[in-house]
Amino acid sequence: MDTNLERIRNDIEALSKFNATPGKGLTRFSLTPEDRQVRDYLKKELSHMDVKVYEDSAGSLFARRNGLNDDLPTIMIGSHFDSVKNGGNFDGPAGVVMALEIFRTLDDKEISTKYPIEFVAMIEEEGGRFGAGVFGSRAMAGMVDYEQLKNNKDADGISMAKAFEDFGMNPKKIEEAKRDPSTIKAFIELHIEQGPVLESNQKDIGIVNYIVGINHLDITISGRSDHAGTTPMDMRADAMSIASKVISKIDVYAIAEKNGTVATVGSIDVKPGATNIVPEKVKFTVDIRSKEYKSIGRVKDKILKDLQILIDTNEAMSFNIDTMLDIHPVEMSEEINDYFKEKSEVENYTYEIMTSGAGHDAMIMGSLTDVGLIFVPSKNGRSHCPEEWTDYEDLQKGIEIIYKTILELGEVE
Amino acid sequence: MDTNLERIRNDIEALSKFNATPGKGLTRFSLTPEDRQVRDYLKKELSHMDVKVYEDSAGSLFARRNGLNDDLPTIMIGSHFDSVKNGGNFDGPAGVVMALEIFRTLDDKEISTKYPIEFVAMIEEEGGRFGAGVFGSRAMAGMVDYEQLKNNKDADGISMAKAFEDFGMNPKKIEEAKRDPSTIKAFIELHIEQGPVLESNQKDIGIVNYIVGINHLDITISGRSDHAGTTPMDMRADAMSIASKVISKIDVYAIAEKNGTVATVGSIDVKPGATNIVPEKVKFTVDIRSKEYKSIGRVKDKILKDLQILIDTNEAMSFNIDTMLDIHPVEMSEEINDYFKEKSEVENYTYEIMTSGAGHDAMIMGSLTDVGLIFVPSKNGRSHCPEEWTDYEDLQKGIEIIYKTILELGEVE
Repeated sequence: MDTNLERIRNDIEALSKFNATPGKGLTRFSLTPEDRQVRDYLKKELSHMDVKVYEDSAGSLFARRNGLNDDLPTIMIGSHFDSVKNGGNFDGPAGVVMALEIFRTLDDKEISTKYPIEFVAMIEEEGGRFGAGVFGSRAMAGMVDYEQLKNNKDADGISMAKAFEDFGMNPKKIEEAKRDPSTIKAFIELHIEQGPVLESNQKDIGIVNYIVGINHLDITISGRSDHAGTTPMDMRADAMSIASKVISKIDVYAIAEKNGTVATVGSIDVKPGATNIVPEKVKFTVDIRSKEYKSIGRVKDKILKDLQILIDTNEAMSFNIDTMLDIHPVEMSEEINDYFKEKSEVENYTYEIMTSGAGHDAMIMGSLTDVGLIFVPSKNGRSHCPEEWTDYEDLQKGIEIIYKTILELGEVE
Repeated sequence: MDTNLERIRNDIEALSKFNATPGKGLTRFSLTPEDRQVRDYLKKELSHMDVKVYEDSAGSLFARRNGLNDDLPTIMIGSHFDSVKNGGNFDGPAGVVMALEIFRTLDDKEISTKYPIEFVAMIEEEGGRFGAGVFGSRAMAGMVDYEQLKNNKDADGISMAKAFEDFGMNPKKIEEAKRDPSTIKAFIELHIEQGPVLESNQKDIGIVNYIVGINHLDITISGRSDHAGTTPMDMRADAMSIASKVISKIDVYAIAEKNGTVATVGSIDVKPGATNIVPEKVKFTVDIRSKEYKSIGRVKDKILKDLQILIDTNEAMSFNIDTMLDIHPVEMSEEINDYFKEKSEVENYTYEIMTSGAGHDAMIMGSLTDVGLIFVPSKNGRSHCPEEWTDYEDLQKGIEIIYKTILELGEVE
């Protein structure tokens, strides 16, 4: 292999130390002392190379490695370096280390590429501190403005605008982070799978063809609270009964799509919520994801139809659906994926063509440029927890494939 | 009618003023200043009659009206005078006013009965303060001891034993409240229905044949929390999916018993409870009530069977059932009910033979003596809330029927 396992391990271990909750998983929120420590580490590593290091006005860290034809658009590689609360050491950093290691390998071998290459370490992808997920990429895509920075607040009520200032940045310049799409030839990310598929299917890497569309629904069913002993079954307007009948079929509808569509009811709240009172109100969430937007629509329609039929049987009942999130699927670049496949075959790595069920910066970058996304296996499918783990050998394989792809895309002379 | 509507109205209105939360429904917990005010009011009303007023060592208030043959067992009439938090003016007091008005009517008419008659106003039926429901009747049945008084604590951590002392009572004498069953010929209670049946069927009074048995289950389903996007449907152990399939059939099982059996899932808790995380653990309650203990068993067995079948399909899943409450149905006295029916027909009141879906002191008194229970209509079936209401005319009809029954049971010479 051209990349170096020891350096990869050292990077991950070093970044893992910049953590607000040692012993309780990794917590690295944006614009904190731990965030600063990561920047300092990365800047020091990058300082050994002939690259231009800079931060954009959204706070993402970049390093530009000039191309032989430096007017050409750049190939951007990287991921994010923030984490969820009490998360793990790989979600985000794995992709940042990928970019750093590729830069070092190119440097070691004194390789010049026709196209410039850009390292990026993005902030606030998780939205852990300010609830402003995929922030770094949204800023590049021009989806963020100063108003939002004032409105996005952390648990202590500190706005992102104020946090920017405290960090030595000017929040009013946020829109300058917007990138002209013509300046980017491609964006390539590496991320841990965060699911069990690669491990379960014993594959080395995942080549993502789609990042799923996501629909989040808040469904509220309203009936009437009654005494659970004195109210005959035929005189009730039991919101829990209706909710259970609707929820019980949601997984069936997802499976029926036969294209990897998933649906989850992750939270439910019952009012008044006493053992001996018939529930008046039940509110639950539905999370539907699919690489096909039509599948999301069909599952949603079936849920709606069930609700309508059940509610219509009892005039004391009603329901309400709020769509909290509605994101379309994003298709990855076929050209880049063809490189990924070819390089995997050459290296004798097994791979799985797969859909990403989680959102990533690559999803947003898809609105700017061609995108490629490589998954590396997650041990037991776990992520966003202290147990999150990817074997360094597996991580290196993903990095190696991207390295080899960069040599092609960047056009080594 | 022999009873007096104005006095009934005055009593209810007077008792409604002894309230810790005016404007927010009636809150009258046991052994509080409001409790004392009720006692004082009742003692004053009873003081105009030739009765012996006393409190038993559990704190229930009694008044004994001697019989012509005073060695005979007493006919006890009454209910409780405590309330739930932010409840209404009728749940409990309606039955206390029944007893008071019958005593006054007997006195007005200078009626002597062969059997002694005992007025009772019981405390802590709701368990609102100490969580020790049907306390007054349980004390009479010998189901309470000093240890329990020390363990039953209110929201401020004050034990019932301490509250007894503060109220001027000796908690160590609690077991003296136990009544020898041979001293009681019958117990008759009047209570608001707390349900919609009488109003809905346009009946004046309810004659209760059974107080239901009650089974409370805590069911916990355990699976595995996974990312709602990255975990394929066939790799999940989704506790919410299983729970919804089980819950969705519980009402069907209750209805299938065709004998008024009811079942309710009133509370549910999901862990971790996030939109985008497959639930690891779902805990929900089941409340099953029936006049037939076998029906409760059948519903419970069907739930268990569903759980077993669903859990067996996925080795990552398990479940647990805890039985929190298991009370057998209590049958009311046929003899007393025959009097109720006969008197209703004479007075031209419409009545419904019905099951009580709620527990009452009469349920406990059934372990000591023959029991009769009359229901009066609840407006919109509502109770345990400020809107709780029974028309005074309806309340009087219930009182009148019990009065006429007492004349027979007590044997007017």
